[in-house]
Amino acid sequence: MLKYLKIMKKEEKLKKKSLNYHKKPKPGKIEINCKKKIRNIKDLSYAYSPGVAYVCKEIHKNKKKSYDYTSKGNLVAVITNGTAVLGLGNIGAEASKPVMEGKSALFKKFAGIDSIDIEIKENNTKKIIDIIRSLEPSFGGINLEDIKSPECFIIEKKCKKKMSIPVFHDDQHGTAVVVLAALTNSLKIVKKKINKIKTIVMGAGAAALSCLKLLIKKGLNKKNIYVFDINGLIHKKRKDLNVYNKKYSRNNKKSLIKTFKNCDFFLGLSSGNIIKPEMIKKMNKKPIIFALANPNPEIMPEKIKKVRKDAIIATGRSDYKNQVNNLLCFPYIFRASLDLRMKISEKMKIIASKYISKLSRKDGLKKSRIIPNIFDKRLISYIPYKIVKYFNKKKSLKINMKKYKLFLKSVTDND
Amino acid sequence: MLKYLKIMKKEEKLKKKSLNYHKKPKPGKIEINCKKKIRNIKDLSYAYSPGVAYVCKEIHKNKKKSYDYTSKGNLVAVITNGTAVLGLGNIGAEASKPVMEGKSALFKKFAGIDSIDIEIKENNTKKIIDIIRSLEPSFGGINLEDIKSPECFIIEKKCKKKMSIPVFHDDQHGTAVVVLAALTNSLKIVKKKINKIKTIVMGAGAAALSCLKLLIKKGLNKKNIYVFDINGLIHKKRKDLNVYNKKYSRNNKKSLIKTFKNCDFFLGLSSGNIIKPEMIKKMNKKPIIFALANPNPEIMPEKIKKVRKDAIIATGRSDYKNQVNNLLCFPYIFRASLDLRMKISEKMKIIASKYISKLSRKDGLKKSRIIPNIFDKRLISYIPYKIVKYFNKKKSLKINMKKYKLFLKSVTDND
Repeated sequence: MLKYLKIMKKEEKLKKKSLNYHKKPKPGKIEINCKKKIRNIKDLSYAYSPGVAYVCKEIHKNKKKSYDYTSKGNLVAVITNGTAVLGLGNIGAEASKPVMEGKSALFKKFAGIDSIDIEIKENNTKKIIDIIRSLEPSFGGINLEDIKSPECFIIEKKCKKKMSIPVFHDDQHGTAVVVLAALTNSLKIVKKKINKIKTIVMGAGAAALSCLKLLIKKGLNKKNIYVFDINGLIHKKRKDLNVYNKKYSRNNKKSLIKTFKNCDFFLGLSSGNIIKPEMIKKMNKKPIIFALANPNPEIMPEKIKKVRKDAIIATGRSDYKNQVNNLLCFPYIFRASLDLRMKISEKMKIIASKYISKLSRKDGLKKSRIIPNIFDKRLISYIPYKIVKYFNKKKSLKINMKKYKLFLKSVTDND
Repeated sequence: MLKYLKIMKKEEKLKKKSLNYHKKPKPGKIEINCKKKIRNIKDLSYAYSPGVAYVCKEIHKNKKKSYDYTSKGNLVAVITNGTAVLGLGNIGAEASKPVMEGKSALFKKFAGIDSIDIEIKENNTKKIIDIIRSLEPSFGGINLEDIKSPECFIIEKKCKKKMSIPVFHDDQHGTAVVVLAALTNSLKIVKKKINKIKTIVMGAGAAALSCLKLLIKKGLNKKNIYVFDINGLIHKKRKDLNVYNKKYSRNNKKSLIKTFKNCDFFLGLSSGNIIKPEMIKKMNKKPIIFALANPNPEIMPEKIKKVRKDAIIATGRSDYKNQVNNLLCFPYIFRASLDLRMKISEKMKIIASKYISKLSRKDGLKKSRIIPNIFDKRLISYIPYKIVKYFNKKKSLKINMKKYKLFLKSVTDND
């Protein structure tokens, strides 16, 4: 009872602090400023009519010139319809705004990217695709956010295909990139091979399915994967599956606790406090446990440690070691993509993941440090650099990498 | 020939300067910044997960709370589809971006309003209405810009009706507000009554029709108005009219030069150099001539002065006296509308117009000063103040007007 009251008090405090942070001194988290001076009629004649007409004409002749003369090349829209916001579900476009604004603020803070949040009041999949596509002239990139599955898969796929700017659904790919980085380092520590491990994935939403796709690409054996959702194991006799989670169906039903036997890797992307210590007990030696539900993990680290001292543990929380957070990925992959003026590809994701894990290893690998801290200042000059370097060479883009390194150092100097 | 070369050289210089202004040191004119600090995990826990969830929940309970906790209340989207950009016509969404970004920069510079440009690749009227409506949760107001007529009338009307945030088509109403202000002062100087004057309007686009609507409301007699477009006088036998310009049809055809006889007020919102001095000669004594085509007026002021020393002349250009520019209106009317959290009404436009002309009269009225200079620092603390004061009283809103005056002084202190 006392413990419960303590938690309540802590939550009340967080609520109060968060509301205050958003409200004062002025509401909201982002602002838009003039990048150029408009001091007098002369400035105005360049910035606006009549001088701006020459700029319009240049872009009218060649659309790519908008990267030279407008903010487009450094501008990402964070777009949602508010159907799967945080752990809150379908709270609608209006109520999702604080999250989307937060994401925009993070783009600036961590990668110097101008970003604006766009909350769209529309739930029809086809219409939302049309709306997003119609916005293409305005932005250099689109970060899809908190759109529920399976609609998010269709929306991302169609927009990616039909648009010539990068489109990235961070809930899927950002998570996958960071999970792969964390798993890579964990496997090095426990000396296991990715193709040999038995995996339980708890949750079958956008993030879980995208993680699986990337992990399988990097060697995880589909035969050794067991995916559970709210209705239990995904298996062939279930009638409630869609084309996306169906891919992972097992032949037969099996209980969660039995499946935990000899499991090497638990990946939780579901909801809080649904895994019990007796399940964890059954895992193979040196188990890898990523309990990433937010804000409450599938099982709290303390509970795991009580039964398994040999486990590597990661959560989505900032108050424990090994925080698996998309923030390690999305600002940097977008930075590289904008600077390359290329869409985000599988290869970019894999390079990002590789160097996220490598950056962590630079400090010496240990169980409590399988991924970098999100405030690690080296991320901005390391991750985009490596991605741009790869494509610069492969596509002979003639980007001056020395200058690019200096640029990366400069983009977040505004702190 | 020498004069032509001189103009060419001047234009080349303006082009070079404008392109350079847009390109360097970084492309574009606006940037998006964090309004709040994100220095560490604690800040992040307020700005983003987990703390932001409390903020979302508050807005989910009551949508109006987004004005307390997000940037919405100070955020205006400048929206176009690029079908009528400056004097350039239908150059498309991409090429319109420099103008829209410029408009956003002006919102910040002159009224402290955060503004983002949205260029929509869509020409279907119904679809563009749907898209704009779907964006309502994202913004505190919508400034429609450079959408061709008559579609712009339908788009504005529908969006205004269906949306609960201010929607304002500046090309129409901004121009009308400033023209009314300038005409009011001109009539005082020449001592004529608005209901007595004979008017020629050259142009029948969005701006011209909106000016007429407002001027008629303020007393201009419809019987004394002659509207011309590219095909001559708007009259009943013409087959090419739409519901909007049809309203102003005369019974019979008449030539432009004949119509100029005894005309008191010429309002040009068409294109450059189409009015000849011999037409101006025919006007009544003390004629009022607003030649507002941009960048080249319907007739240059020098040419008017040669034949009519008694004329009051205004243009849209910054290099002549009496610049009729929307910039005298839109930043301030939006400032008031956002601060009142009310839609923009006819009454607001009329108050804006009244005090724009009054501000000019404070410095003493003369032929070369019928409207304020656009860089007049008094505009921001005067125009929105008067609008807010009116509605504060009328609707008993309990806004502290002393505090509001201080706020207005503060919003553009960032110069």
